[in-house]
Amino acid sequence: KYGYFGKDKPQFVKLLLCNVSGCLTDGQIYMTAKGDEMVSINTRDQAGIDMLKKEDVKVILIENDPNTKALAKKLAKRMKCQLLQDVGDKLKKVQKLMKKEGLEWKEVAYLGNDEPDVKCLELAGLSAVPMDAPTVALNHAKYICHNAGGHGAVREFAEHILLLKKEAKSQMEP
Amino acid sequence: KYGYFGKDKPQFVKLLLCNVSGCLTDGQIYMTAKGDEMVSINTRDQAGIDMLKKEDVKVILIENDPNTKALAKKLAKRMKCQLLQDVGDKLKKVQKLMKKEGLEWKEVAYLGNDEPDVKCLELAGLSAVPMDAPTVALNHAKYICHNAGGHGAVREFAEHILLLKKEAKSQMEP
Amino acid sequence: KYGYFGKDKPQFVKLLLCNVSGCLTDGQIYMTAKGDEMVSINTRDQAGIDMLKKEDVKVILIENDPNTKALAKKLAKRMKCQLLQDVGDKLKKVQKLMKKEGLEWKEVAYLGNDEPDVKCLELAGLSAVPMDAPTVALNHAKYICHNAGGHGAVREFAEHILLLKKEAKSQMEP
Amino acid sequence: KYGYFGKDKPQFVKLLLCNVSGCLTDGQIYMTAKGDEMVSINTRDQAGIDMLKKEDVKVILIENDPNTKALAKKLAKRMKCQLLQDVGDKLKKVQKLMKKEGLEWKEVAYLGNDEPDVKCLELAGLSAVPMDAPTVALNHAKYICHNAGGHGAVREFAEHILLLKKEAKSQMEP
Repeated sequence: KYGYFGKDKPQFVKLLLCNVSGCLTDGQIYMTAKGDEMVSINTRDQAGIDMLKKEDVKVILIENDPNTKALAKKLAKRMKCQLLQDVGDKLKKVQKLMKKEGLEWKEVAYLGNDEPDVKCLELAGLSAVPMDAPTVALNHAKYICHNAGGHGAVREFAEHILLLKKEAKSQMEP
Repeated sequence: KYGYFGKDKPQFVKLLLCNVSGCLTDGQIYMTAKGDEMVSINTRDQAGIDMLKKEDVKVILIENDPNTKALAKKLAKRMKCQLLQDVGDKLKKVQKLMKKEGLEWKEVAYLGNDEPDVKCLELAGLSAVPMDAPTVALNHAKYICHNAGGHGAVREFAEHILLLKKEAKSQMEP
Repeated sequence: KYGYFGKDKPQFVKLLLCNVSGCLTDGQIYMTAKGDEMVSINTRDQAGIDMLKKEDVKVILIENDPNTKALAKKLAKRMKCQLLQDVGDKLKKVQKLMKKEGLEWKEVAYLGNDEPDVKCLELAGLSAVPMDAPTVALNHAKYICHNAGGHGAVREFAEHILLLKKEAKSQMEP
Repeated sequence: KYGYFGKDKPQFVKLLLCNVSGCLTDGQIYMTAKGDEMVSINTRDQAGIDMLKKEDVKVILIENDPNTKALAKKLAKRMKCQLLQDVGDKLKKVQKLMKKEGLEWKEVAYLGNDEPDVKCLELAGLSAVPMDAPTVALNHAKYICHNAGGHGAVREFAEHILLLKKEAKSQMEP
């Protein structure tokens, strides 16, 4: 199942939407008895986000869990990415965002990892899940990463996006 | 050994009992020189607990280690689950709880991971252990998760419970 | 290479000597910018130590790194084990301890994980290394654990020691 | 691809250059909501660095990420290694350092893990990447470690360097 099987030839992805929990992080939440929480990201994934920005792909992070609001903000700031919070219905929130940004689905890449991501995984021009995502999400992604969430999945998908973008560009040239 | 081999067809599981250390967490306890402790849980498992609650399966967490009392309370609060502490003999404590809740063993699912869980693993209508549990526990579980404790075992068992619940329901319909 | 190949039939192990870094922990040291340090242990290994004590096997922890003195003390206290620090030459320190405790090598089990442990691994009646120990240590252990340090190696070796102790006892009976 | 395939027989490596993020650490950065950051190193890798120093191989750490300046300093201090920060173009910075130290490329070993390391990986007498490095770095290293970054790659490369140094020495003797 590894590889890309979308109907439309991807052309110019302009936006990557990426979950924080389970995609940018591995979904582990570390907790102290005092109630402090901690998550981890990988510098490889950070480098992947930087690669996308350098090639004019905007990256927007999504966090749905109200428990980790402050943490998600810190992460987004460190990654220098915009952050979607209080998402509720992901499809609606994403469509609203796309309208605002003037984007079509074929210009959107989506990295998700669970049931609430299913519709976006289906609709986005490019979509992927980390290797360790639950089956319900695996079944609806166009690309399954060889790397796990928080441990290289973002970097791998970024390289995939940039490769397809490069191919699309080279086909446009005379 | 993967799969379910119980004698009784499971019907309507109404309660999941689940260890904190080694099931909801991976059993790792992080410690600072100052004596602060930290554990981690996975958002996938949190989503699994939410899935169970949505289908009217109560989830009660069990923590036996007096060292991690405060931490277990924080975790239970975050998961919005009731917590059993100061357990001592697990079988007795669980039987007392079942009596109070008016439940039979066939209505109880049990996720354990070590020697003190053996009797409950044998008696519960549905029982499971994470992939990385010691042999003594593996030998007495009806289902062995493909995922490790703290890294998806709760989610996997939750999906397993809901699947069997759905099958039981569909057989009841005329 | 898995299994036990010592010359002497092990009889009554009375003491387990066990490294903190790389045996009881996985060797990872977490550090903050402020200089605070953190390590992790697994509750499975803690249970293994408790199993040994219950069968009258004393457990003494060894920590050589002066950087983690305070942390090693905390760990030893939590495990309710004696701690050897400022070790220097491990063989000398262990021989001195054995003399004090009135023990022979065949009564000692040793869990080590690196070059400074080589002589003790060779001399102890029972000796083991975690799966992920460097080759230099692997080559001198009588038993190679299937589990990694900090993730079940202590528990596995504890079960191995107790099994052999039980066999030795049963042979003594008429 | 495992093994060493350089053209020049390595002789006397006098310096190891090693990335902090992704080589000495596994690239994971742990973050709290307060903004505190944490990374981890392995005592096996620390022992590897000590082994090199004992055989007169200097070890210099490299950290490019301005976000982790304070942390990298703490790590370097703990490892008792010099630290290169504010690196920018790695090749230039390394060449400047080599000039100052009076070293040629064949006397330098380089452990890198991503795109900015490519030129140094190609030029250094000995070069390696951790097992989990992105493809772009894997393709340019002379040696691919069996261990991941932050989990034994430094130790493995240190042993490799010392083995080749020993061989070179023994060939020099009459």
